[in-house]
Amino acid sequence: MQIDQSPADYIKSQIRTVPDWPQPGVMFRDITPLLKDPRTLRLLIEVFVHRYMQTELKYVAGIDARGFILGSILAHELNAGFIPIRKKGKLPYQTVSEEYELEYGSAAVEIHADACDAGDKVLLIDDLVATGGTMLAGKKLLEKLGADVVEGAAIVDLPELGGSRLLREAGLPLFLVCSFDGH
Amino acid sequence: MQIDQSPADYIKSQIRTVPDWPQPGVMFRDITPLLKDPRTLRLLIEVFVHRYMQTELKYVAGIDARGFILGSILAHELNAGFIPIRKKGKLPYQTVSEEYELEYGSAAVEIHADACDAGDKVLLIDDLVATGGTMLAGKKLLEKLGADVVEGAAIVDLPELGGSRLLREAGLPLFLVCSFDGH
Repeated sequence: MQIDQSPADYIKSQIRTVPDWPQPGVMFRDITPLLKDPRTLRLLIEVFVHRYMQTELKYVAGIDARGFILGSILAHELNAGFIPIRKKGKLPYQTVSEEYELEYGSAAVEIHADACDAGDKVLLIDDLVATGGTMLAGKKLLEKLGADVVEGAAIVDLPELGGSRLLREAGLPLFLVCSFDGH
Repeated sequence: MQIDQSPADYIKSQIRTVPDWPQPGVMFRDITPLLKDPRTLRLLIEVFVHRYMQTELKYVAGIDARGFILGSILAHELNAGFIPIRKKGKLPYQTVSEEYELEYGSAAVEIHADACDAGDKVLLIDDLVATGGTMLAGKKLLEKLGADVVEGAAIVDLPELGGSRLLREAGLPLFLVCSFDGH
């Protein structure tokens, strides 16, 4: 890390771009190098802790599966509980479900019906915001349980895919550490 | 928590059993109540930190997806890097792959080819050991990269399914916080 570099710029510099994955033309933003180095991981977590240390969150809800990584560390650091938001069919107890659209067809995410109570302050977290479909579905799930979704947070924004605009228009404030051009 | 209860007994008492899920006759052991309460989550993490605080681990490798939750918190607490072991087709960079058998057919897990280096001490973590197939595949993946897999760790052992015996026979020491009878 250069001494005059901001945490956000350093974090962005440690994300690996894998061209043409999962299909030609897509530039995939790979966070595994961020997770591999403990000092970089610590800096990343500190950026989120600094953002939420005064927020009195009851829960951090992480989206299956990369959102579990940041979400669970952050829950532990903030002394909050962790709620997994999972792909359909993965949670064993009574669930609430929400569909969202994909390029072809649709998918659904689920949350346990007893994951939180009305009025609980919850932070929603994933690694990246692309089209915003999964995070919007996560917001709706938490709101079906009456939660107060204080913010959506991710490391990476891909603004050209329109997800961050969609989420803000749907009333979800966002905290996104860095952004990349293109898809 | 009762004052004379061991951490392992308390942790076991907070796991929810969901009968007949995902199919009739299966008693599913659900860790979401452990994650929901921050004090219980803290106790759980402390049990693992206590086990590994002297081990000088370079990485904690968590198995997709519930292993990401414990594994990432533990990596952060132990000042180690985090390595995701993922279901096939989820990692964007060059990968190493390992198949394992399911009741019907097979599945595969993958790791990035640059996830670690020869000789690195790695802890392998998941939430539960059932048949042991996924954890054994994870061990093989890490060993293909030359890692020293110091132990496999999980919250729950289901000894009647034979996984913990299989893993120990394959040369993987295990740390399992509690066990349940039945499937």
